[in-house]
Amino acid sequence: MDRLPLVTLTTDFGTVDGYVGTMKGVILTIAPTAHLVDISHEIAPQNIRQAAYVLYTSYPFFPPGTVHLVVVDPGVGSARRPIALRTPAGDFVAPDNGVLSYVMAREPVEALVELSDPRYRLPQISHTFHGRDIFAPAAAPPAAGVPITSLGSPVPAPLTFSPPSVEITPVGIIGEVLHADHFGNVITSIGLLAWSESDLILTPAFRDVQRGESVRFRAAGATVTVAGQEIAGVHRTYAKVAAGETLALVGSEGHLEIAVREGSAAQRLGLHPGDTVILRP
Amino acid sequence: MDRLPLVTLTTDFGTVDGYVGTMKGVILTIAPTAHLVDISHEIAPQNIRQAAYVLYTSYPFFPPGTVHLVVVDPGVGSARRPIALRTPAGDFVAPDNGVLSYVMAREPVEALVELSDPRYRLPQISHTFHGRDIFAPAAAPPAAGVPITSLGSPVPAPLTFSPPSVEITPVGIIGEVLHADHFGNVITSIGLLAWSESDLILTPAFRDVQRGESVRFRAAGATVTVAGQEIAGVHRTYAKVAAGETLALVGSEGHLEIAVREGSAAQRLGLHPGDTVILRP
Amino acid sequence: MDRLPLVTLTTDFGTVDGYVGTMKGVILTIAPTAHLVDISHEIAPQNIRQAAYVLYTSYPFFPPGTVHLVVVDPGVGSARRPIALRTPAGDFVAPDNGVLSYVMAREPVEALVELSDPRYRLPQISHTFHGRDIFAPAAAPPAAGVPITSLGSPVPAPLTFSPPSVEITPVGIIGEVLHADHFGNVITSIGLLAWSESDLILTPAFRDVQRGESVRFRAAGATVTVAGQEIAGVHRTYAKVAAGETLALVGSEGHLEIAVREGSAAQRLGLHPGDTVILRP
Repeated sequence: MDRLPLVTLTTDFGTVDGYVGTMKGVILTIAPTAHLVDISHEIAPQNIRQAAYVLYTSYPFFPPGTVHLVVVDPGVGSARRPIALRTPAGDFVAPDNGVLSYVMAREPVEALVELSDPRYRLPQISHTFHGRDIFAPAAAPPAAGVPITSLGSPVPAPLTFSPPSVEITPVGIIGEVLHADHFGNVITSIGLLAWSESDLILTPAFRDVQRGESVRFRAAGATVTVAGQEIAGVHRTYAKVAAGETLALVGSEGHLEIAVREGSAAQRLGLHPGDTVILRP
Repeated sequence: MDRLPLVTLTTDFGTVDGYVGTMKGVILTIAPTAHLVDISHEIAPQNIRQAAYVLYTSYPFFPPGTVHLVVVDPGVGSARRPIALRTPAGDFVAPDNGVLSYVMAREPVEALVELSDPRYRLPQISHTFHGRDIFAPAAAPPAAGVPITSLGSPVPAPLTFSPPSVEITPVGIIGEVLHADHFGNVITSIGLLAWSESDLILTPAFRDVQRGESVRFRAAGATVTVAGQEIAGVHRTYAKVAAGETLALVGSEGHLEIAVREGSAAQRLGLHPGDTVILRP
Repeated sequence: MDRLPLVTLTTDFGTVDGYVGTMKGVILTIAPTAHLVDISHEIAPQNIRQAAYVLYTSYPFFPPGTVHLVVVDPGVGSARRPIALRTPAGDFVAPDNGVLSYVMAREPVEALVELSDPRYRLPQISHTFHGRDIFAPAAAPPAAGVPITSLGSPVPAPLTFSPPSVEITPVGIIGEVLHADHFGNVITSIGLLAWSESDLILTPAFRDVQRGESVRFRAAGATVTVAGQEIAGVHRTYAKVAAGETLALVGSEGHLEIAVREGSAAQRLGLHPGDTVILRP
């Protein structure tokens, strides 16, 4: 066999309890050769937008055919549907609560089903742990070669939330903070379309969503305003400033990012998801 | 090969140091195709009862033949025995300190040995890291097809601690808090025997321990008293109350559970393992 | 196949974001059968010495041929070189910032190259996430059988930092705190050369660095002074003192260690890496 079937896991279950291990036991009982990769189990409890963002940065680096299992599920036990989505970039198994919004914005939908076939569930379904009883048993068959269209009945569009706010205005591009990472680097909703030696070409939405709009800036002359503070210039790398200094740069996902070299910008500037960021030429 | 040999790991080693990785290196040196699954490495240091509980919720979801390696070992370097247990549900390798108590309560013992054969240890044994030197080298051979009876000499019953307290009294069922999970959901020792549309049938001990005693309740009429607070009704799902409200429900392990929807009951009510819980009809 | 190709990962990326998962996606896209083992992703941000220590305790327990990928990279985007090192004990892929110092002190160098061949990088290189774009794509080919000498051009010696301070003086051995682990056990730079029933034979440097110097002590008569406190005797195991008591012992890596039985010595004594430790006969 050339390739072990791949399943990634993204949850808000933490790593103290046995919940993640239990889901893996369910998957490996059904698909014994599956190769399991953790994306994150430290999504803040019930934080669907954070899970959507973390998934958005990770899934493109896995081979097509990978099954991405996402269980951040505040509505467990309610009427929210469990779904499976097929795209050219991979399969996704998740609750229908918006957690696949950024995937949907980037990838064409090849199939979308509700996880309704009882053959692909555990025989006994609890009301509080569908990760174990519904989602894990549905993520395993695609890893074992069963097409996701067998998992249930086709459904129309899933629930998606509105993309992060970004606007091109006469003043500059107005965006928002998307995420503060482990290092305290703050990723914004202002995406990069292209990059030359001295110029930034920025786009109001995620890089793969082509709206036709874009703005060209001289990187050195640009100014970023965030939390009442002005940061001069947009750089390519942390190494452009001294340790402890704040800078704006283009991050690894192609988004405008605020960082402190060898420090935490989130902490220093008190930034949180949703805070306004203005990029001026 | 149909099935990669499976080894799960449950420890209190944390994930900062290289201890867990080191044990995996030892296992994979001996059993190169073993598939390793983490249950938890965030058991509170030396907390044998927490490890026993986490293992209890996870191991039934792995295929028979899986080797469950548990290293929560406050007695490392003392006279406590390292043991291996074979049951129809899986093999267990652990220190003989009670950490397999809940497994023993549920599964028949097929074999029990002390890990005394020097062929299944590292050549040099430290006095402080038997996870690496004794337990990991003993977990690998069963994964590679060596029966656990080869690992050492048969021994009689292992050390077990008394099961969590639960009593049927004229007032109601009196139990205790077993565990507070990552979400702050509080799992109690009061187990569910069966469940109908409107009734709870509860049992004083773990669901698989059949003592013949049980109590039938109307779920809607029941009251749970914990930390001086009364909670009315026992529900099936978090979605039965508004976000931020406290509720009692039957959790995914079939135990009575106290939760706050999209919040932490452990924090809100200040609950800890051992606290008394009373369920009244 | 007898052995899945093994790749270990040691980073300061944490486990909240998708960074580690993304690197694994890159590796598995290139080397689909690679077996990935996490050593630690909780290295303190940019702490090269901690990463070097954690790697030092783990890599010897993996089979030769294992690829050890280390990404603690404060200089990302600067002129620091990405390198690959071949030793009889395994291959190492890392930034050239000293993180392989302890490996270099113990293992002979068989080959050392700069990761300069563009075939073994992602097509687009960010300026801030070389773990994904340069290091992961370089760790995968050795796992798939490509020799590391193909990854780029040979370079002379890598950057190494000075080994931890240890001196044999007329007063005793003066060393320093290297690391405080998850349990609060404090590992020092004073290494053990040999051990008999009643004697310690200590060496000023890491056990595998033979300088010819050593000191023989009676274990029971020795005294350890640290943070202004005297600890009498050097023991073999935690079990030699009552729960809650402080002791000195020889730890699992063969280094002098300060511990509190079932407690945290780091917390109790307020110890940090770099603090002075004196061992007197």
